[in-house]
Amino acid sequence: MAKQQQKKKQQTAIQPTRSDDFPEWYQQVIRAADMAENSETRGCMVIKPWGYGIWELIQQQLDVRFKETGHQNAYFPLLIPLSYLEKEAGHAEGFATECAVVTHHRLETEKQDDGSVKMVPTGKLTEPYVIRPTSETIIGSAFSRWIESYRDLPLLVNQWANVMRWEMRPRLFLRTAEFLWQEGHTAHETENEAIEETRTIHRLYEEFLRDHLAIPVIPGEKTEAERFPGADMTLTVEAMVQDKKAIQAGTSHYLGQNFSKAQDISFTGRDGATQHAYTTSWGVSTRLIGTLIMAHSDDDGLVLPPRVAPQQIIIIPVTPKEETREAIIDACQALAEVLRREKSYGGQPLRIHVDSRDIGGGVKKWEWVKKGAPIRIEIGPRDLESGKVCLQRRDQAPNAKEFIPKEDFIRHVEETLADIHNQLLQRATELRDNNITTCTDLGEFTNYWDQEQPGWLLTPWNGSREQEEELSKKHKITIRCLPLDLQDEDPSPCILTGEPTPQRAIWGRSY
Amino acid sequence: MAKQQQKKKQQTAIQPTRSDDFPEWYQQVIRAADMAENSETRGCMVIKPWGYGIWELIQQQLDVRFKETGHQNAYFPLLIPLSYLEKEAGHAEGFATECAVVTHHRLETEKQDDGSVKMVPTGKLTEPYVIRPTSETIIGSAFSRWIESYRDLPLLVNQWANVMRWEMRPRLFLRTAEFLWQEGHTAHETENEAIEETRTIHRLYEEFLRDHLAIPVIPGEKTEAERFPGADMTLTVEAMVQDKKAIQAGTSHYLGQNFSKAQDISFTGRDGATQHAYTTSWGVSTRLIGTLIMAHSDDDGLVLPPRVAPQQIIIIPVTPKEETREAIIDACQALAEVLRREKSYGGQPLRIHVDSRDIGGGVKKWEWVKKGAPIRIEIGPRDLESGKVCLQRRDQAPNAKEFIPKEDFIRHVEETLADIHNQLLQRATELRDNNITTCTDLGEFTNYWDQEQPGWLLTPWNGSREQEEELSKKHKITIRCLPLDLQDEDPSPCILTGEPTPQRAIWGRSY
Repeated sequence: MAKQQQKKKQQTAIQPTRSDDFPEWYQQVIRAADMAENSETRGCMVIKPWGYGIWELIQQQLDVRFKETGHQNAYFPLLIPLSYLEKEAGHAEGFATECAVVTHHRLETEKQDDGSVKMVPTGKLTEPYVIRPTSETIIGSAFSRWIESYRDLPLLVNQWANVMRWEMRPRLFLRTAEFLWQEGHTAHETENEAIEETRTIHRLYEEFLRDHLAIPVIPGEKTEAERFPGADMTLTVEAMVQDKKAIQAGTSHYLGQNFSKAQDISFTGRDGATQHAYTTSWGVSTRLIGTLIMAHSDDDGLVLPPRVAPQQIIIIPVTPKEETREAIIDACQALAEVLRREKSYGGQPLRIHVDSRDIGGGVKKWEWVKKGAPIRIEIGPRDLESGKVCLQRRDQAPNAKEFIPKEDFIRHVEETLADIHNQLLQRATELRDNNITTCTDLGEFTNYWDQEQPGWLLTPWNGSREQEEELSKKHKITIRCLPLDLQDEDPSPCILTGEPTPQRAIWGRSY
Repeated sequence: MAKQQQKKKQQTAIQPTRSDDFPEWYQQVIRAADMAENSETRGCMVIKPWGYGIWELIQQQLDVRFKETGHQNAYFPLLIPLSYLEKEAGHAEGFATECAVVTHHRLETEKQDDGSVKMVPTGKLTEPYVIRPTSETIIGSAFSRWIESYRDLPLLVNQWANVMRWEMRPRLFLRTAEFLWQEGHTAHETENEAIEETRTIHRLYEEFLRDHLAIPVIPGEKTEAERFPGADMTLTVEAMVQDKKAIQAGTSHYLGQNFSKAQDISFTGRDGATQHAYTTSWGVSTRLIGTLIMAHSDDDGLVLPPRVAPQQIIIIPVTPKEETREAIIDACQALAEVLRREKSYGGQPLRIHVDSRDIGGGVKKWEWVKKGAPIRIEIGPRDLESGKVCLQRRDQAPNAKEFIPKEDFIRHVEETLADIHNQLLQRATELRDNNITTCTDLGEFTNYWDQEQPGWLLTPWNGSREQEEELSKKHKITIRCLPLDLQDEDPSPCILTGEPTPQRAIWGRSY
């Protein structure tokens, strides 16, 4: 029985598998890796240390890039006066249905007969506040105080914060009522500069996803129907995950003068005349972690790209005999020390953990498989003698192993980590490229969405907003983006209207 | 007129001065250094980049120490169900009067006749939530899910987060409705281990304030009257600032089994019996920045200890003549490069800014004085020839300067920064030690509090809670702590009851 179970485990550590039930597999990967869980606060998750460790790495590495591009961090109030939200009507309507509202500022405690305490809200506020669903309005009000002259521009600010959008169908990391994110907010003298900023961040997100998360995105522009409420242009990076659905992984918005006019972000220009600034906003969130899981993980659990693995290398002493136990553990610690001292990856010291817990080797191994540690190293009595280590890579089959001289492992460790990253990126790129189909025929288009796990369709498109919404509703799809690198092709007939158009659209189902 | 103004400025850049009006001076230092400002969200501040930069450094440096002592970061929901708060009655009552309450989860937009939009809360929640004033209850509920066996202990978790306590008299950094903090929460198998953890963190805070913020605190225990709601023991680090008031800069609480019983944080012990865990909690907040300002700043503005200065060294090119301008700026950049590449302080690369803005040298200099940059370096045409730099230190008079060979400056830069830190620490220690007076006579005690800026009194004390509260009310003071390093002295008569007691108390006014 025990043996049978183990055998089954070796086939696949996560039940159900991806092909059995992808959404449930996703939940089980998170549970098996001990990353997060639901809480009793509706739609809000607890991010456990292994999940939060990934977020910390994402945060540190993105923050460096924001600072290199001239942005400074600041912090703005959690609560937004309702009157602020009301100023930009489109924005207000876009978020109205999902705002948590604070109406009282104290509680009265009532002692119950059984000795317990009951608390009742009191101290009603004359003006209610909403918990920020995003901070354009409150940061805009600060900008209107700070900006006086063109000399104060550009103003380039970023905030790391929690935000709240009351979600009706929450899903860990991908869609939670409260989530953690960064939101950049900038103000510029000219339209061109603001658009340039929007594009710079868009490319930064694309590169970050590729180089840090091993996720190849399609960068593109959202259609009007899918734009951020209040924006003139929304750029997006769209990731395809293993069930071929799309995830909007990050967005960069050009807000034109919509918010600056609503909030009076004005300045004295070079010509002495007062004018309104051009603003942008952009963000990525803990949703990146959900994207990461769905992009790379397999039927044995989480698979982490090395840059964002809280532990990159797990060293496991294999100690069948008591007499060699100490020597083996010492050798493991010594290896960890050498790696920490002499090696680095992506500009950071290596993150290494020696797991010398006194539990079964199989249990230990599978725990780290399920947690997605990129490299596992085992050292046993025979390895100690031969000067070798047993190398196991998370991007390979769980039982694949290679015995290599310890010195070779040390010498090549950075290449090995880079190779794991590249393998993940290559697989994800193949998945994406194999599942984007060019389609120029409406009949084909219509039939395509009947299959169980459709990919994405790339079509010539110049339909109206109404036509887009009709098609979207009919097939439960959306235009994910007008892919930037594929615009201005030779004109082809729009799939719906038949009019020749240089514009291309990508359609798909999404999370 | 301009000259007069400059002269006045050189006397003191901040008006009023500390001796004129300390609380107003404090506000003006913050404004002059561009650190933070009030917002229209009641009691909430905007933390501007220079202030937030200090917080980022505090956060990074504390985080390293938490991780070294075995703690892991995680993240828990912002909103706490009312029913959670009700479980620990003392805790609930302690925070009831300052809780922001979320009662609705959507807004209805009503279009007004003038085209504007008005928003009205709707979607009433069956159970309201409070925005966390602290997270013992919600983290405790996670702990009760996570802990099953003694093998799961100790559980050592920390959270970096925003919290909210509705403040009636807010003051930037020191007391704001929303503030940023870290809150550690741990669970242990035995009382001893939990008390040991409480003390470990207490010492960690003491050392952090001394070694990173140059603030010499008095570590001690709070009396029952001043304890955290729900704690069995509260340890505190108390800082004296320049008007001789006390600031509680950090606290570490031993919670006994109060929260574990209220929330059923129980485990199967080594003997197989079910028992309740012993828990602790501890935190420091953006209040540290207020403490920092009041401890070190002077009548010319902010003074920053080098470890937490967002920029430690400002290099200012002095370019009176166009023909040497480029060479001087190049020399400044080259100096910055050498320092960044070759030098470090406190284990971090140096933070250096070359201020080559094309504005008056005096304006520039005073801006950095007011921002508290520890070192300013000027390089002008003559220095370029002589190979010297003009060194100005923020801990010295604003016009003190020293011309030293550039190579000497580079060679000794770490010592210079360490010396600035030590000077600040020494001054603050002298201020503190000169203003703590031992007092054994009730008449002297009573008279002491009549002076305008009293310091602290150290007295033998074994009075009751009621007697303590009566004395506190009468003189507008509190027992800041029972100082740890001064307990178990030879018994002396309690200042009030006259009974011999080994216990010592420190009394003072506080923020």
